[in-house]
Amino acid sequence: MAIDRTRLRWNGWGNLDVAAPLSGPQEQVVLQQLAARLGGQLGKASKAAALPDVTLPTSRLTDDAHTALAQAVGAENIHTDDAQRAIHAAGKSLPDLLRLRTGKISTAPDVVVYPADVDAVAATLRVASQHRLSVVPFGGGSSVVGGVHPQHGKHQVGVVTLDTTMLDALLHLDTDSHTATFQAGIDGPSLEAVLSQRGYTLGHFPQSFEHSTLGGWIAARSSGQQSDGYGGIDELLIGVRMVTPEGEIRTLTVPRTAAGPSLKELILGSEGVLGVIVEATVRVRPRPMIQDIRGMIFPDFRSGTKAIQAATLAGLPMTMMRLSDASETELSLLMRQDPTRKVDPTSLFLNGLRSLGYRDERSVMLYGAEGDDSRQVATVMKSFAKIGRRNGGFRLGSGPGRKWQADRFHTPYLRDYLLDHGVAIDTMETAFEWNRLPEAHEEVLAAMRRTTERNAGGGIAMGHVSHSYHDGACVYFVIIYPLDVDRGVDQWQAIKTDTTNAIVKAGGTVSHHHGVGIDHAPWLEGEQGSLGVDALRAVRNRLDPQGIMNPGKLL
Amino acid sequence: MAIDRTRLRWNGWGNLDVAAPLSGPQEQVVLQQLAARLGGQLGKASKAAALPDVTLPTSRLTDDAHTALAQAVGAENIHTDDAQRAIHAAGKSLPDLLRLRTGKISTAPDVVVYPADVDAVAATLRVASQHRLSVVPFGGGSSVVGGVHPQHGKHQVGVVTLDTTMLDALLHLDTDSHTATFQAGIDGPSLEAVLSQRGYTLGHFPQSFEHSTLGGWIAARSSGQQSDGYGGIDELLIGVRMVTPEGEIRTLTVPRTAAGPSLKELILGSEGVLGVIVEATVRVRPRPMIQDIRGMIFPDFRSGTKAIQAATLAGLPMTMMRLSDASETELSLLMRQDPTRKVDPTSLFLNGLRSLGYRDERSVMLYGAEGDDSRQVATVMKSFAKIGRRNGGFRLGSGPGRKWQADRFHTPYLRDYLLDHGVAIDTMETAFEWNRLPEAHEEVLAAMRRTTERNAGGGIAMGHVSHSYHDGACVYFVIIYPLDVDRGVDQWQAIKTDTTNAIVKAGGTVSHHHGVGIDHAPWLEGEQGSLGVDALRAVRNRLDPQGIMNPGKLL
Repeated sequence: MAIDRTRLRWNGWGNLDVAAPLSGPQEQVVLQQLAARLGGQLGKASKAAALPDVTLPTSRLTDDAHTALAQAVGAENIHTDDAQRAIHAAGKSLPDLLRLRTGKISTAPDVVVYPADVDAVAATLRVASQHRLSVVPFGGGSSVVGGVHPQHGKHQVGVVTLDTTMLDALLHLDTDSHTATFQAGIDGPSLEAVLSQRGYTLGHFPQSFEHSTLGGWIAARSSGQQSDGYGGIDELLIGVRMVTPEGEIRTLTVPRTAAGPSLKELILGSEGVLGVIVEATVRVRPRPMIQDIRGMIFPDFRSGTKAIQAATLAGLPMTMMRLSDASETELSLLMRQDPTRKVDPTSLFLNGLRSLGYRDERSVMLYGAEGDDSRQVATVMKSFAKIGRRNGGFRLGSGPGRKWQADRFHTPYLRDYLLDHGVAIDTMETAFEWNRLPEAHEEVLAAMRRTTERNAGGGIAMGHVSHSYHDGACVYFVIIYPLDVDRGVDQWQAIKTDTTNAIVKAGGTVSHHHGVGIDHAPWLEGEQGSLGVDALRAVRNRLDPQGIMNPGKLL
Repeated sequence: MAIDRTRLRWNGWGNLDVAAPLSGPQEQVVLQQLAARLGGQLGKASKAAALPDVTLPTSRLTDDAHTALAQAVGAENIHTDDAQRAIHAAGKSLPDLLRLRTGKISTAPDVVVYPADVDAVAATLRVASQHRLSVVPFGGGSSVVGGVHPQHGKHQVGVVTLDTTMLDALLHLDTDSHTATFQAGIDGPSLEAVLSQRGYTLGHFPQSFEHSTLGGWIAARSSGQQSDGYGGIDELLIGVRMVTPEGEIRTLTVPRTAAGPSLKELILGSEGVLGVIVEATVRVRPRPMIQDIRGMIFPDFRSGTKAIQAATLAGLPMTMMRLSDASETELSLLMRQDPTRKVDPTSLFLNGLRSLGYRDERSVMLYGAEGDDSRQVATVMKSFAKIGRRNGGFRLGSGPGRKWQADRFHTPYLRDYLLDHGVAIDTMETAFEWNRLPEAHEEVLAAMRRTTERNAGGGIAMGHVSHSYHDGACVYFVIIYPLDVDRGVDQWQAIKTDTTNAIVKAGGTVSHHHGVGIDHAPWLEGEQGSLGVDALRAVRNRLDPQGIMNPGKLL
C-alpha cells in the first residue's frame, strides 16, 4: 500500500518522526502567554494512550464474510488485527483525537480491506451487501468532520472500512490537453511527485495535503492553499469514475457539457455515501518556475479584506491571499518570539510597527503569485502591493512567505502537542458574501468567546480569510481553549454547536471545504432545505438502495 | 409582460422589423455561389404560413381547469387564443421552424399562463397536478433542441405552457459583493439594461441573447459569446430558487460551499423537468470601459487552435477567441463581397493574403479582451497577437471585430431568409479535449458532408471554435444544405442523427451549451451512462412524482 500507516500517528496528526513544534525556553514562554490568554491557566496535561495498550470491541466479521471478502480483494489485502482496526477507527477531528487518546475505542471497523483494483472495489461492495456490512471508504483518513467514522446502518451488522490507498497509479497523462487521470487513492505527495517528474503540478494543497488522497479531496469538495489561483478540486476535476452498489458511474471527459445536470457535481461532495470514487481526471499545469509569496500588514482586518476584494474585482491572478485577523496575527507573532535572545528582532520590529500606526487591530496578510515569466509575476505582485497600500497596507517583504512555505504543512502538529499540555484547538470554516463578511467575522468571534467562556472558562477566538472569490470569501476560524479532559467530547460539542449556530446565523455555509460528515449533518437541512436534501437522498436510494455506503454521514 | 411577442416572428427568429440579411445585387451573387457549393442548386423556394392562416388542434382545457388556473394566476394572465397558442407551440430549432412554416400545427399548448409572482407559479403547478395537465416552462422560447415542445406526459391530458416573462424584476443589487438577484423570466436586453443603468454587466451573451431569459440560460446551461472571460452561466450563478411540484428549493447564496453535492448544479441544465426556476443570484461586474476585438488570419485551422491553446495555458484573460475553420472563413468572406463595386476591396485583400501564404485552408480568428485600463487591455491583446504570430497568424486589425459587434445577434435571421430560398441551415455544437480536437473536427465535417450528400445531394459543412478551456474547446458546427421542403423534418432528422453520431464517436459531448431537450435525448444515456441518468431520474421522481414537468425532455 502506498501510505505506510505504521509510520504515522494513529491517534494524532502526521508522521511519528516530526519533532514537537515547541521546545526549550520558547516552549515555556509560549505556554505561559497562552495560559494568560486562556483565563489564567491551561487544562490538565494528559498523555495519549499508546497503540499496544488500546482496547477495541471484538470484530463481528463472520467466517463466511471473511472468506467472501478474501475472494473479493485477495487474502493478503484483508486485515482484522487491532492495529489496522485502530488506525481506521477514526478521522482527525478534535473529538476523534479526544476519543482515541483515551485508548478505549468503542467503535472500530470489523475488517479493513485494501482493494488493489477497481474490480476488487466492486466485489467488496457486493460482498458487503450480501453479508449486511456497511462500507466506509477511507483515503488518507484526514476527515475533520467524522467522515470516516466506522458506524453501520440500521440494516447492517458490521463495518468494512475500504482503504483506497492501493489504488494510487497515474493512469494517463495527456500532455496535449494538460490533464491527468489517476486512481483516486493516490495521496497528495505521491500525486505531486509523479506529476513533478513529468514537469507538471495539480496545484491542490489542502492543509491535509501530506495525508489525504485525490478521492478524499473530491468526496469532501476540498480547497487548497493555492486554490485562489488553481481553483478548488471542483474546478480541477473534469472526469470521474465511481463504483456504487448498483454499478458504475463514469462521466465523459470533456471541458464542458450542457448534457443535463452535472453528475460530476453530484459526486463532488458525496462523502462516500453514493459509492467509492476510484478514478479521476484532473486539470494539470506545467510547474511554475517562479513562486513569490510576500507579507503585508494592515491596520485592521477590514482594510485587509478591502484589499482582497479590490484585487479580486480587478482580476489579479493571485494564487493566494491569506489574511489573518488581529487575534491570529497577535498569536502568530507571539509564537515567533525568541526568549533566548537579549534583543529579540521580532519584538523590535513589532514595536516599530506600532509607531507606524499598526497597533492592536493589525492584521497580517500573505499574498502570492506564480508563473514562468519573472517580469509578469513581479507585475502582478506589484499591482497587488499597490492595492494593498491604497488600503493602508505596509509591505513586510518575502520573509513571512518563506516562513509560511517552510511551515505550511506543520501547523496541524501543534494540535497534538497542545492536547498533551491541556489545551484544545479546533477549526471551523465557512464562506460569506463580501457585504456581510466583516460583521459576520466579528459576530462569530464573539460567539466563540462566549461559548469558550461558558464551557472552558476562557478561550482565544481568531480567524483568517483563506480563499477569496468575486462575491465573497472563506473565513477559517480557530478556537483555542483549556481542555477539560474528563469531558472533552461534551465540552467540544457544546463549543462546536454554538459556533456553528453563529456561523449559520451570520449567513455562512456550514462548510466551505471540510464537508459535512457527521459533525455538520444536523445543519444540512437548514442550508440545503428539506426538499433539497430529499433530492440528494433520492439519488442515494437509487445508487445504494440498501444504504450500505458510509452510513450516518452527510444525508 | 416584458416581451411583446406580437412584434416577434412567431415562426422564425427575432423581430419582425429587422430587414432581410441579403438584398439587391449581393443577394444574387451569394445565392448563386451558394448553389454552386450545394451541388448545383438550391431547394425549392417556399413561403412560411402567416399567423392568421394557421390551423391548431382544439384546446383540451376543461372549464374547471380554466377556472382553477384563473384563480392561480389571475384571469387576465391566461390565454387560449390561437395566436398565443401558436407562438408557444415550438422553440426555434430547425425542425420547429420547418413544422411551423407549414401552418399546420399538430401540437400546441392548451393554455398559456403568465404568472406574475412566485406564488402564482406554485399555484399553477398545483392546478396542473390536480387537473392532470403537464407544465412546459417557457422563457424566451429560443430552445434549439425542442426544449419547450408542448407535449404532455402519459398520465396527463393536456398542456399548460407557463410563460415566465412577467417575472422580470431586479430584486436586489449588492454593490459590495457584486451580485444581482433577478426574477428568472427577465430577458437578456432587459437584464443588461437594468444593470447598465447602475454601471454593471452580467457579461452573458448567448447568440439568443435578445430573445432568451436568465431562467432559460440556467435551465439549458448556456454559454455566451464572451464566456471565455466571464464564464458560462454555471460560473455566473451563485444562488437559485426553483418551484417544484413538491415545494421549493432555494440554495444558500455563498461564494462556495462544501455542504454536500451542489443543488445549484442539479438545477443548472435541468431544462424544466424538475421545476420552474423563478429567481437567480448572479455575479455581476462593473461595465468595462474598453472592449477590444480584433481579427487574425491563420494558415489553417490547426495552427489557430494551437494559438488558442497556448493563450489558455498562459492564462491570458481573453474574453473571446473565436476561430472559424477554412470552410466558414471562405463562406463569411464570400458574404462580404460587393458585386456593385468595380474593384472590390475585399477581393483585393483576399488575393493579397493568398500571396502571403494564407490560401485555401486559411482560418480567421476574432480575439478580444476588455477592462478599464487601456494599457492593461493593450498588453493582453499584444500578448495574444504575439502568440498568434508565433503560430503563423497575421493580424487583420479591428475591422473584423467591429463587423462582428455590429452583426453579432443578426446571424440567426439568415436562417429564415435561406429557408424562404430553399436552403436549410442548422447548427450543432460540442466540446472536445485538445488532444483530439483537430481530428475530431475533421471527422465530424466529413460525416456532415457525407450525410448531406446522401440526404440532400450536397451541402456545406463548417465550424468554429467558440469557447476555450484549459483542456479543450467547444466546436460549433454549421451545416447548410438544399431543403427538400416536402420532407423537411425527415431530411433534417437523418442529417442530425448522422452528425450527432459522428460527434459522439469523435469523443464529444452531445451538447456544450444548447442542452438536451428532445433532440439530444436519445444520446443522453450514452454520455451519462444508464445509472447516471437513473440517478437524475430519481431526483425528478422526488421533486415531480406525477411527472407533470416538461415531459419528454432531457430524461
